Parts: sequence; C-alpha cells; structure tokens
Amino acid sequence: MTRTRIALLLGDPAGVGPEIVAKLLARMADRPDIRFTVIGTPEMLAAGAEVAGVALPPSLRQAGTAAGGDGAAPVLAGIPTAEIGPIRFGEPSRAAGLYALRSLQLAVEMVQAKQIDAIVYAPLNKHAMKLGGFDEIDEMHFLARLFGIKHFFTELNQLDDLWTTRVTSHVPIRDIAALLTPQRIIDATKLAAETLRRAGIARPRIAVAGLNPHAGDGGTIGEEDIEIIAPAVRVLKAEGYIVEGPQSPDTVFLGARRGSCDLVVTMYHDQGQIALKAMGFERVVTLLGGLPVPAITASSGTAYDITGRNAASAEALIRACDLARRLAESPAVPVPA
Amino acid sequence: MTRTRIALLLGDPAGVGPEIVAKLLARMADRPDIRFTVIGTPEMLAAGAEVAGVALPPSLRQAGTAAGGDGAAPVLAGIPTAEIGPIRFGEPSRAAGLYALRSLQLAVEMVQAKQIDAIVYAPLNKHAMKLGGFDEIDEMHFLARLFGIKHFFTELNQLDDLWTTRVTSHVPIRDIAALLTPQRIIDATKLAAETLRRAGIARPRIAVAGLNPHAGDGGTIGEEDIEIIAPAVRVLKAEGYIVEGPQSPDTVFLGARRGSCDLVVTMYHDQGQIALKAMGFERVVTLLGGLPVPAITASSGTAYDITGRNAASAEALIRACDLARRLAESPAVPVPA
Repeated sequence: MTRTRIALLLGDPAGVGPEIVAKLLARMADRPDIRFTVIGTPEMLAAGAEVAGVALPPSLRQAGTAAGGDGAAPVLAGIPTAEIGPIRFGEPSRAAGLYALRSLQLAVEMVQAKQIDAIVYAPLNKHAMKLGGFDEIDEMHFLARLFGIKHFFTELNQLDDLWTTRVTSHVPIRDIAALLTPQRIIDATKLAAETLRRAGIARPRIAVAGLNPHAGDGGTIGEEDIEIIAPAVRVLKAEGYIVEGPQSPDTVFLGARRGSCDLVVTMYHDQGQIALKAMGFERVVTLLGGLPVPAITASSGTAYDITGRNAASAEALIRACDLARRLAESPAVPVPA
Repeated sequence: MTRTRIALLLGDPAGVGPEIVAKLLARMADRPDIRFTVIGTPEMLAAGAEVAGVALPPSLRQAGTAAGGDGAAPVLAGIPTAEIGPIRFGEPSRAAGLYALRSLQLAVEMVQAKQIDAIVYAPLNKHAMKLGGFDEIDEMHFLARLFGIKHFFTELNQLDDLWTTRVTSHVPIRDIAALLTPQRIIDATKLAAETLRRAGIARPRIAVAGLNPHAGDGGTIGEEDIEIIAPAVRVLKAEGYIVEGPQSPDTVFLGARRGSCDLVVTMYHDQGQIALKAMGFERVVTLLGGLPVPAITASSGTAYDITGRNAASAEALIRACDLARRLAESPAVPVPA
C-alpha cells in the first residue's frame, strides 16, 4: 500500500492546535496507510502532548528539515524560529501568527517538492496571522497565492455524509448578492461535485440553496433566486448533474441530513456553517477546494477559551486525515476553466 | 382558574393545517386551562380529523358565529365561505388563500371584541394568500395593519428553552445591512426580553449575533458588527440587560443550545431559522411579537408534499398553545416607544 503523505500543522499554536494534533498522533501515528510529517517545533508539540496526556512517538522529539524517506514513523519538519519569539497560550499574538504562517509556507514548499500529498492543519486565527504580517482575506487565498492558483477555488465542508460548498465565503453580508453569478454557482458546484467523486460518491445528488428567505418566495423577497440561481441550476441539469434548487435555505439542510442529497451548494459562509455547526459542531471539517493537494482543517476554531485544558476534541482533525487519505487515493481534480 | 381563550386557525387549509389542528384538539380539547375557538369551517376540520384518524368533540361539528360563553367545550366560529369555492389539498390556491385570510380577519375581530386572549394558527402559504388578494410582506405585517400597530414589532422563535428574535425578517439578503440600526437592534431585544419575562424568564440572558462571517473578524469582513451592533449592545448593557455580543453567527447558537443564554438576537431571518430548524425542526414555534395578543404558529410550513398522509407532527402547534397560555397569564407587554 502506498502511504498518503500528510503534512500535519499545529495551526495557531496558541490555541488548541498542539493538544489536538498530539491527540490525533496518539491515535493515528501507527496507521499503515498514512505517513505524517508534522510541521512545527518539538517544544510546541511536546507542550500539546503534555496537555493531552499522551506520549508522542520518539521520532517526533526533534525536528528534521524535510519529509524524510518512506519510513512508517512520523517525522517532524522544523520551521525557522529565530524571528518568532515566545508564544503565550490562549490569545492571539504576532508570534503565534508567524508560527502559523511559516508552517503553511513550509507545507507549500513540500507540496511543490512533491514530498506531500495532502495538508491537514489545526484551526488558525486570522487576527494572529494579521499580526504576523498576513494580508489575505483567509488562509485559502494565502495558499492559493503561494501556489499561484488562477482558477476558481472555494471551501467545502463535510459533516458525516453531508457536504456543503460556498459560492461566496469571507465577504460582508451586504456584498453577497452582487458577487453571485450563474457562472460562480456553476463553478462551485462542479468543483464540489468533483471533490465528492474523488471521495467516493460517483454521482452526487446536489441541492442548491436559495439566497433569500424562503428562496425569495416566488420573487417577492428579492429576485436573485429566480434570476441568478435558477438559471445556474438549469445549466447544471442540462449538463447531466443530479441537481435541484433553489431550495429554501432554512429547510434544505433537513432533507440533506435525512439523506435526500449528498451536497448542498450554499450562497454564503454562514448559510452552511450555521447549519453544519448546529448539527454536529465537533465533527465538521473544512476542505479548501481547487488547490494542488487537498488542504483540510477542523471547522471548530482555535478555541482559546478552552486551550490547555484537554477539553478540545480531535475528532474533526482525525476525520480530516481520513478524508485526505481518501482524496489522495483518487486521481487529481480536473480544474474548472 | 380562568381559561385562556385561544383562537385556533387552520392556517392554509390546503396544507397540513386541518390535520394537525385536529390532532391538537384530540390531545388538548379537555385542558382545564384553555378554551378553544376554532376558526374555519366544519367541512375542513372534519377532513383534517379524517386524515389524522381522530374524533372531534361534538361541539365542533357545526359552526357558530362567535366565541360563545365560558363553557369548557371548544366551539367553531365559522368564516364567510360564499366567495371561497372548493379547495384542493396539497397545492396553493386562491380559495385556500382566501380561507386563510378570512380566518385571520375573524380572529382579529374577536380580539378587538375582547373574546380572545391569543391566536394560534397552523402554517400559512404566502403565495396562496397573494392569490387571495393579500399584498403584505407576511402575515405579521397583515395582522399589524389590521390591528393598527405603529410601534416596533417582529417575530420571535422558540425551540425548547432557546429563544431567538430577528431584527430584520422577510427582506432580501442584499437589503439587510442597510436596515440595521442600533435602535432597531435595541427595540427587537427589548421586545423579546419582555416576551421572555412574560413566559417566565425574569432576567433573560441575551446573546446578540453578529451580522458578518465571524462577526466581522475584527472589522476585516464588513464594519456593521463594530459600528452598528456593538453600540447597541453597549446601550442595552448600560440599561441593565444581561447581554453579550456581537458573537460569531455560526457558533452563537451552540453556546445557547447548551444553556449559556436564553435568547439569541439575530440580524436576519435565516440566521436564526437555519439554526433552530437544524436543531429541532418539528418543535420550533414562531411568535409575532408586539401585537395586542400573542399570535403563534408552527415554524414548519404548509408541507404540501406530505399533506393528507397523517405524517405531519402537531408538536409545534401544541407547544404554541402552551406558550399562548403562559403568556396570556402574564400582564400585557409594555410596548417599546
């Protein structure tokens, strides 16, 4: 069996990242189908292991500089720490932001050097990364820039068997309507459908959420559902996708949860995030779709308020690794033009 | 014990209204603390009872014209049917819309005649009501017009112990930001807090949701969270309310669900509706706040697709009656100026 080579990042090291990464490694380090390259520093990882009350494999006690060979044991790829300085747990800081950014940069370099098949990262904090010099809207745009991506990319989320994707993401509510076009809806749907195919769902059944309350109630609450979303659904249907919509945003997730579809295409960040987090906060993962390798994280956030208490669940990050493995086994995503 | 006099409406009679009203009556008609005046027609109510497989009290087999005396048995107040015509189950129609509108109008008249303490209505269909000549944005605005309400009014929702209210409701997503003002947020919060007080929560703990993803992430995703919502929260705090916010819209409901607050003030319709329906679709009720009497419905919709199959739950409508009873026992709501 070829091992899937996963770069595993501590995310924001001042949050629950180190402890949940340590928990994950305690459970998954022996997996025959995955080889982990932890990106970070031995000190932070050891601090996480201490909080989590787990023993780390000896191979993680000191950092190397690269992914190493094809051995089974996880390795630790060290980041440059000279400029970073000390990190205080439980709050955003320039040091923690720099740590997260250097980790992402090293992961990208390792992907470009073909040493890595997937990136799994613990939750990040945008404010900390901004203190560290980050000036992108989110980590997806940061990674897309490092990889030089020009085509459409967006986040997907997964909760158990239910997937969502977003046509818009980290934008103000007032800007959403103007950003929606049939083409963006089509691009997001196709990128998600291809991701689901790689994850093992050959012909995903897709529900497209409306934008406005009750999907516009027949055009009486905004025209976007009729003028932008419905035409996109017609195009997708004509191309052979199994797709329905626009459906009422406050009920589309209920049918989906009961298994009536595999994927809900959402129009904006909170439409899907409110639903998935309400239905299973600790199990939701976020996948950055459209990058050269899958990049996946837990959707639960840095959780500074419970950092250091061994109260954070590693469940979503473990699922992220399982998903990375599944996706890495499939052929690469043909990218929408 | 004084009975709470509840006007019980079939809602859209082509939907699941008649069957869930019949189910409700089979379970609640003997309650010593409530006296039901069903508003509708004996034929529709009987049709609902047949679907639900329940026997109705004999007092409901024919219509009177008013609420009757203080007897225990439920009565049926007939609506004028000459102009309505036959109603087909399972689809919106002019006839069904007219039926719903005439029922609401009679309920308002009975409130004005002091014959009724609360209105509980099965779900309505806006499209059907529009076919019937309705030209309001929703039933709340229709009732507010009939009652001549000039002050602030809005919907509240309740799922078990968790309440939400909305600063905006049936408006397009693109218009939400421009409709938000500190005063509207304050008005909505005070109206909701007063409603909760009447429902038995003396000092409600309140979380105010942000507008933008991650509540604007420190001003990097829209300014409304900082410039409109935060000032409203400060005013409410200064007036002695137990209130926090703006909180991230995709996590505020999780804490609330675990009991960290009693009320989430939402900025728009789907923010709260997606969360509550994901957490307990069949138990959510909607309360129109700011009317002369409580008006409460099930949030689940007309459900044409399952009409006539006895598959719809009466649970939310039963909870609506319990809530109406609780609110009617308390002194009237002091209305925000």
